[in-house]
Amino acid sequence: MEPIKPIKITKEMKVKDLVNSMSDCGFNANKISKAIEILKEVKKEDCKLFFGLAGAMVPAGMKNIIVDMINKNLISVFVTTGANITHDLIEALGNKHYKGNANINDAELHKKKIDRIYDVFMESKVYQDLEDFFNKNFDALKDKTTIKEFLWGIGKLINKEDSILTACYKKKIPIFCPALSDSGIGLMIWNNLVKNKKINFSEFEDLKEMLDIAWTEKKKAVFYVGGGVPKNYIQQAMQFSTPALYGIQITTDNASFGGSSGAPLKEGISWGKMSEKGKFVNIYCDATIALPLIYAGFKE
Amino acid sequence: MEPIKPIKITKEMKVKDLVNSMSDCGFNANKISKAIEILKEVKKEDCKLFFGLAGAMVPAGMKNIIVDMINKNLISVFVTTGANITHDLIEALGNKHYKGNANINDAELHKKKIDRIYDVFMESKVYQDLEDFFNKNFDALKDKTTIKEFLWGIGKLINKEDSILTACYKKKIPIFCPALSDSGIGLMIWNNLVKNKKINFSEFEDLKEMLDIAWTEKKKAVFYVGGGVPKNYIQQAMQFSTPALYGIQITTDNASFGGSSGAPLKEGISWGKMSEKGKFVNIYCDATIALPLIYAGFKE
Amino acid sequence: MEPIKPIKITKEMKVKDLVNSMSDCGFNANKISKAIEILKEVKKEDCKLFFGLAGAMVPAGMKNIIVDMINKNLISVFVTTGANITHDLIEALGNKHYKGNANINDAELHKKKIDRIYDVFMESKVYQDLEDFFNKNFDALKDKTTIKEFLWGIGKLINKEDSILTACYKKKIPIFCPALSDSGIGLMIWNNLVKNKKINFSEFEDLKEMLDIAWTEKKKAVFYVGGGVPKNYIQQAMQFSTPALYGIQITTDNASFGGSSGAPLKEGISWGKMSEKGKFVNIYCDATIALPLIYAGFKE
Amino acid sequence: MEPIKPIKITKEMKVKDLVNSMSDCGFNANKISKAIEILKEVKKEDCKLFFGLAGAMVPAGMKNIIVDMINKNLISVFVTTGANITHDLIEALGNKHYKGNANINDAELHKKKIDRIYDVFMESKVYQDLEDFFNKNFDALKDKTTIKEFLWGIGKLINKEDSILTACYKKKIPIFCPALSDSGIGLMIWNNLVKNKKINFSEFEDLKEMLDIAWTEKKKAVFYVGGGVPKNYIQQAMQFSTPALYGIQITTDNASFGGSSGAPLKEGISWGKMSEKGKFVNIYCDATIALPLIYAGFKE
Repeated sequence: MEPIKPIKITKEMKVKDLVNSMSDCGFNANKISKAIEILKEVKKEDCKLFFGLAGAMVPAGMKNIIVDMINKNLISVFVTTGANITHDLIEALGNKHYKGNANINDAELHKKKIDRIYDVFMESKVYQDLEDFFNKNFDALKDKTTIKEFLWGIGKLINKEDSILTACYKKKIPIFCPALSDSGIGLMIWNNLVKNKKINFSEFEDLKEMLDIAWTEKKKAVFYVGGGVPKNYIQQAMQFSTPALYGIQITTDNASFGGSSGAPLKEGISWGKMSEKGKFVNIYCDATIALPLIYAGFKE
Repeated sequence: MEPIKPIKITKEMKVKDLVNSMSDCGFNANKISKAIEILKEVKKEDCKLFFGLAGAMVPAGMKNIIVDMINKNLISVFVTTGANITHDLIEALGNKHYKGNANINDAELHKKKIDRIYDVFMESKVYQDLEDFFNKNFDALKDKTTIKEFLWGIGKLINKEDSILTACYKKKIPIFCPALSDSGIGLMIWNNLVKNKKINFSEFEDLKEMLDIAWTEKKKAVFYVGGGVPKNYIQQAMQFSTPALYGIQITTDNASFGGSSGAPLKEGISWGKMSEKGKFVNIYCDATIALPLIYAGFKE
Repeated sequence: MEPIKPIKITKEMKVKDLVNSMSDCGFNANKISKAIEILKEVKKEDCKLFFGLAGAMVPAGMKNIIVDMINKNLISVFVTTGANITHDLIEALGNKHYKGNANINDAELHKKKIDRIYDVFMESKVYQDLEDFFNKNFDALKDKTTIKEFLWGIGKLINKEDSILTACYKKKIPIFCPALSDSGIGLMIWNNLVKNKKINFSEFEDLKEMLDIAWTEKKKAVFYVGGGVPKNYIQQAMQFSTPALYGIQITTDNASFGGSSGAPLKEGISWGKMSEKGKFVNIYCDATIALPLIYAGFKE
Repeated sequence: MEPIKPIKITKEMKVKDLVNSMSDCGFNANKISKAIEILKEVKKEDCKLFFGLAGAMVPAGMKNIIVDMINKNLISVFVTTGANITHDLIEALGNKHYKGNANINDAELHKKKIDRIYDVFMESKVYQDLEDFFNKNFDALKDKTTIKEFLWGIGKLINKEDSILTACYKKKIPIFCPALSDSGIGLMIWNNLVKNKKINFSEFEDLKEMLDIAWTEKKKAVFYVGGGVPKNYIQQAMQFSTPALYGIQITTDNASFGGSSGAPLKEGISWGKMSEKGKFVNIYCDATIALPLIYAGFKE
């Protein structure tokens, strides 16, 4: 048995040294270091990493980490919510999210046309910019045959270095968003449907591509920030394929509530989604803390 | 100020009397009674109730409550995950979920072809029955123009009294499932796409219908079991419309993690999704406990 | 394998029928029914039940359930926080807790001399009544040799049917409160110490009695509402003795944070505190919901 | 309004730069940076910091952070659980905690005489070393008049640089442990009581000293790792005194469950424990992650 070695904090300490010390601690500190170890192995073994991103991670300031992971060829397949993509586009169009306050009168905010996401604020005028963007560009996008192609198209048009959409487009990373209709971008598509502009893309065509990838790749890893559709969609793709060999999950949910978001990765072994010989870690932590820590500890 | 009155448990106590006592307590017991009060007002005021169901609620045994709420005209619009609908169909086809065990060797389960959802088990052979059902019926379903029509079509075909899909079909309750591709039914659609059977439905057509309803109704209420896409999809429909007047949310998430699932309903006021004069309650509890309690306390 | 049977809610349903239905469900609903089953077995087997009560359960209205469990001879040893005892005494002296509001300006409350416990309010004048009580009675209490005797003394003096302290006194149920100094009653003892009234009791004398009981009893069960000192104190008493055969734990904590409050009961097997052949259940739920449900489902 | 600036992770990044970036993010990342800001202000303003430590923080490897905070004169008053002190003593006597595994057969561990604290292991033979220590030293300790003096006495005897007890002793930092009987050290005191060695200390004498300090100091700050008795004991000391001006709380609990552990610091304003003009932050995170991050970000 290896002893616990209490962390010693030093002046001007590097994140790498901090997370290295965490590997000699217990509880979730230890899990942070395990995630880094797994991520290093994923890279060394040249596994294909399926990354699922849920929660308001773009508004909270996690965008650049994803962009960097894509640009550094860490992420092979990216699955997220319509909200994260919409907020990525909102920022790409020049709008911002703001540092706000969670203990505030929401009726006052509404009068000021400010939308709140816990302690992050956003001006509701961003929707006008979204609408302008799609009014200008919808015709060029509507003939794409998959949501992935549609999103790559947006990424190409906005062409911003710090955009997840642009990074996916440039790196040709498949980006899947099964519930795109559940988002501001979804509303923009609806807005054009109402104007009788037919679209040619469907989430089910994306599913074909997703399953093609998942069923072709042999060495797979998964990384989940939150649960929801992004996690479930990736897990599903593993089910009738070869199971994932590595897994990292950052969640704040509890297994006993039975939802996919809180299910420890090992539950996936019963379904054949995860390999019984795989290496997994479930970190119970706000991803705005855990994700930067893991990536700063990993980055070479 | 009204005093707290400690609960007295009596022999053969009715649920109504228990939750009535809870209205004189604090913490989440109080919230349970508030939810019942709100639900009664929703019914009395003839509000349209938008119900969002996330989490593995069908496998856990919550199906009949939803069916009964639909049949009793409580639910006007129903939004859920692909998983809940798939498990509803699985049961309608004669398969079962089983009482299992969360502390078990998942590799052993996998050998026995048993899929685990926390402490609920399911035989993986259910997928064969799903496939048989769609092989037989897909041609009749593929020309539906919305996912709602597709799901109603399934509900009609299976025709089971205790199926959510059948109840929605019979009562003509719009059922929305924005991420249907993220489910076993999604896999069946994919399976037929691969066989070159084109489909004519799209989640974006459903969005049109959802927004039509949300923007037409004046007196609206929301009820969320869990968060995820079902909650967000309903919330989004309220945004540029008149806001919801009543809200009940059963969650196990914490607001500070910033996700939609844990966001207290009052946050929606800033977005214009919830009325600043509305009545809301956020219950922090496993829905397998809170939902039956609320409904048993409500039912007349 | 036994199938999950979805709950059917009926009109005028009894709590017993509801929790009986929960025994055919998954997740924490199932755990509620297991707790009742265990409690019935504890009674049938005439086990000694060590009950630990943490959290602001008396202010929230859970007092009478404890009193009834004591009067019905279910609880053999009772361990709690100083706060619960103090609030029990506060109510016994004629003061009340009130139904309040968690979303309120605390500075305003402070001006109105109202102390807040989430959504429960209490007038700060209760401390004056506490002081009056101890000014009048301290001399009669200060020569007790254990905290248990001191608390029984208070229970005798107040002599209220719905007081936990009185119930313990009358039934001669040992009541332990290892951190009594951490409470309003603790402040009253301090107040008298300052006036040079020496006391003759010590928590360490109580520990002697607690260990005598724990080490003598052969058939033991534990029931924890929350964690903290009450749980740990009981667990500790099991450690070098025979382990507990039954266990019920209501918690809202997560095992991965490593604290005693969230530790599943089976962790106690490694320590020899719980029997490896024991029956345990860990319910993840607000105790103001779970405790009344369990007790109403149990009561005959 | 200040914009959110997405975190950019750089190679060889320092913790200070990481947490500085977090100050431009939302959710709990932002809270981490706020805690550091508050801690800096506490130091600059020369406030007396009351530090409450709950949870199995010593076994998990957090000991040296506390020791360093004491040695750097950051902590003025230290309150903790009996368990943390006992584990500090266990390590001081030459025993270790080990990196273990949470998914393990506890009955097997019990056979191997290994006690489990989530994923931290400890050999049960440590109790023999504790007993030897007290057999040898109890007579020198039993005449102390407070628990604080008793604990200082132990710290002096063991004289280990990396012991919290020794650091408190050397720095003359008052260390309070209101529920000492609820711990391995408590068992050792009991063991000697049984042998008729009377002790002369009482938790109520410590309360006198605690209140003297709290009521004398004008500029006070609080820092809570977890809740339980350590938090409540400090909060209580603020109540009839001047309120605390600064507060940091690391918790994983949810306010709606009503317990002290999850109560946001602002609730203390109603009680007069916290200043309505104070600066507070409530971080929802495993302390094994948050505490090292905060301290590494703070340390100069």
